[in-house]
Amino acid sequence: MARIKPHTLSGFMELLPADQQKMERFMETLRQSYALYGFTPLDTPVIEAADVLLAKGGGETEKQIYRFEKGDSDLALRFDLTVPLAKYVALHYGELTFPFRRFQIGKVYRGERAQRGRFREFYQADIDVIGDGKLDIMNEAEIPAVIYRTFTALGLERFRIRVNNRKILNGFFAMLGLSERAGDVMRTIDKLDKIGADKVRETLTAELGVPDGAAAELMAFIACPGGTDDKLAFLAGYRGRNEVFDAGLDELSTVVGYLGAFGVPRENFEVDLTIARGLDYYTGTVYETVLTDHPEIGSVCSGGRYDNLAEYYTDKALPGVGISIGVTRLFYVLQEQKMLSEALLTAPAEAVVIPMDGECMAFAVETATVLRAAGVRTQVYFENKKFKQKIGYADRAGIPFALIIGGDEAARGVAAVKDMVSGEQESLTPAGAAEKITAALAARRATRLIRG
Amino acid sequence: MARIKPHTLSGFMELLPADQQKMERFMETLRQSYALYGFTPLDTPVIEAADVLLAKGGGETEKQIYRFEKGDSDLALRFDLTVPLAKYVALHYGELTFPFRRFQIGKVYRGERAQRGRFREFYQADIDVIGDGKLDIMNEAEIPAVIYRTFTALGLERFRIRVNNRKILNGFFAMLGLSERAGDVMRTIDKLDKIGADKVRETLTAELGVPDGAAAELMAFIACPGGTDDKLAFLAGYRGRNEVFDAGLDELSTVVGYLGAFGVPRENFEVDLTIARGLDYYTGTVYETVLTDHPEIGSVCSGGRYDNLAEYYTDKALPGVGISIGVTRLFYVLQEQKMLSEALLTAPAEAVVIPMDGECMAFAVETATVLRAAGVRTQVYFENKKFKQKIGYADRAGIPFALIIGGDEAARGVAAVKDMVSGEQESLTPAGAAEKITAALAARRATRLIRG
Repeated sequence: MARIKPHTLSGFMELLPADQQKMERFMETLRQSYALYGFTPLDTPVIEAADVLLAKGGGETEKQIYRFEKGDSDLALRFDLTVPLAKYVALHYGELTFPFRRFQIGKVYRGERAQRGRFREFYQADIDVIGDGKLDIMNEAEIPAVIYRTFTALGLERFRIRVNNRKILNGFFAMLGLSERAGDVMRTIDKLDKIGADKVRETLTAELGVPDGAAAELMAFIACPGGTDDKLAFLAGYRGRNEVFDAGLDELSTVVGYLGAFGVPRENFEVDLTIARGLDYYTGTVYETVLTDHPEIGSVCSGGRYDNLAEYYTDKALPGVGISIGVTRLFYVLQEQKMLSEALLTAPAEAVVIPMDGECMAFAVETATVLRAAGVRTQVYFENKKFKQKIGYADRAGIPFALIIGGDEAARGVAAVKDMVSGEQESLTPAGAAEKITAALAARRATRLIRG
Repeated sequence: MARIKPHTLSGFMELLPADQQKMERFMETLRQSYALYGFTPLDTPVIEAADVLLAKGGGETEKQIYRFEKGDSDLALRFDLTVPLAKYVALHYGELTFPFRRFQIGKVYRGERAQRGRFREFYQADIDVIGDGKLDIMNEAEIPAVIYRTFTALGLERFRIRVNNRKILNGFFAMLGLSERAGDVMRTIDKLDKIGADKVRETLTAELGVPDGAAAELMAFIACPGGTDDKLAFLAGYRGRNEVFDAGLDELSTVVGYLGAFGVPRENFEVDLTIARGLDYYTGTVYETVLTDHPEIGSVCSGGRYDNLAEYYTDKALPGVGISIGVTRLFYVLQEQKMLSEALLTAPAEAVVIPMDGECMAFAVETATVLRAAGVRTQVYFENKKFKQKIGYADRAGIPFALIIGGDEAARGVAAVKDMVSGEQESLTPAGAAEKITAALAARRATRLIRG
């Protein structure tokens, strides 16, 4: 038979079983963490009508999009979860209760140039709160709590949630007479981490025509040193000069003020006036999250407040606040950095029952049935092989417990329960084995994905 | 601004939040149930190279496939999870441990003609066990246990797992001298439920040229009455006339013989000699699952044993056995039949904290933090509205408990915990509230998706 060489497309993540188990834990942690904050899960189609998906049009995105025809339909694969959310809220507006809090974890598609660590198919995990007409600042204040809880549940300890407010930047730009160039100035500042302060200043003066004095004041402003309270005190010095600035400072103060009530430790939080987030649609609080020991990775969870989620679909004012985790990329990076826990159980099962021969098969199956009823993930090794190969399977598959059943054990109603790591072995009834295994694995079952 | 009318493509399921919660429970139950039997989760790309996906080529599938070009690449969306599994096992053969047991729940795409209850994007939930060269019959015997456990965990009680063995049919066809027409005869029998016995007989004689006598014997064979034991006894009467038949009967006897050890009640199982499963690649045990009260729905979980998973990619013999649940279609049908439980919690949260004014906000947030730490899915209603609107939100969103916090409560460190169904209200500390809500919701949290 003529054969096709099997391959997986470049830029598409396909994990081996042990790594996939880690990814599943990642997803499960995200689902639980988001649900705990009262976000409801959504699932929207991967394929949408191209005119719907590209309503906003233009930009870098359009070139990367997977777009094709099927019959008479012009179709496209979603490239983020925000546009589908906008469509969903506009389409189902009358059937939703606002503020509408949803999370969505799903694959999105961007035909980027293939390179190491860049994916064309990748999971995003988003949460958003959408208001009907208005949305209180407290929704923005709650976001750091969701981020903190999520990363803590993943096992991460050393991370920082960086927060800024676009109104503070816009108000400050206005003070400097730079309002007309606010967008360009914002995008330039956003590159600070990448290109450095000198280059930012040069771009501001040489390319954007910002006067030297204003550029100097701007650079001093974003370089403001100290902790959160120092920065709030520094910002307070500008009060009364611009209404937008004052509103932004009030909002930022609210966000900071409620950190304690939301259970977010101060050491996992900082005000960072350099965060602008390039996207034009953010209008209030903006968020980034960085791993303290790996700043080179950049932000692993970002987002912000916006005023119009769905302006391309509806005249309803739908302000919102949301954050997104690039799950596939983050998983890739955590793997690269060897930050994923080795203690996490990644075997296909927690126990494998090994009958010595066909005579013991019925009792082996009954034993597996008891273990499963007790919640132990269990396989039976059914193949007719030599014992060495049977036990070798348990070893290769990394299954922590093997229950060996020969004629003697079957007659006595017990199994020889072997701890595959220590090699210790003990005769137990099926119920006793379930109890022992459940107790022995309790800690490993609770292992967090990321090493703290 | 020019606006695009938001819409979702026909044939693409997009659920409202309460229904999506039910779907999430469906998925979660499948994941847990499959994992309990030692199947490891896999995730493969939605997009594959067209030559890989269509290695088998031809057939109805090719017309339905979503195929398109991106740059120089000829791409296609997966139309099932079996072909990607074949690719995966062939590609990663050296890195897998056999028998390889995997489950996969994912979206697949078929551009079928749009009609009610037919989907172009739908979830399949598959399990397969793949052997390296050989695979013991016990793997086939275990499949009914997985089906039984899965549907029971979903809450279903009245269902039947129907089992047949292709070797029995093929052996019997050989006895009748119909071996050369076995494929056509098999496909005709497979239509029995749809077209009835008379039409099947007519097709056999008029179209396939089966002699009247053979057709009569065949019709009597598949119409064999009685329970599982009657049928095994009936089949035993044909022993010794054909080796393939005898092998099939041995296998079927093994599957039946271990039902008890696997914990499958006899009333949820039956041997059904009419089940052929149209697909050519099944070679041994075949499975269907029907809802006792809704036979018109057809099989909701089907599959079988095959000899060569990946013959288009590798010369390795990779026999396997697997089953598939068409999740999206089954969910749709269960909804239509009003079989989904009304008791399942589908609200975005289990509790909503309602501060009466900004003065009580900090204590309201602290209360929510305590509830979340105790595992209660909690929202805070942050919007500055009248009390009637605040409590109206809890009502509309279907959130079972509201914790109302005014100045008096905040000062005393308590919340007025209102049961939104009974209307009863009681003052409790945040920890006390968490305890009460957890206890009150224990039964609803454990509610199964399907009404028993």
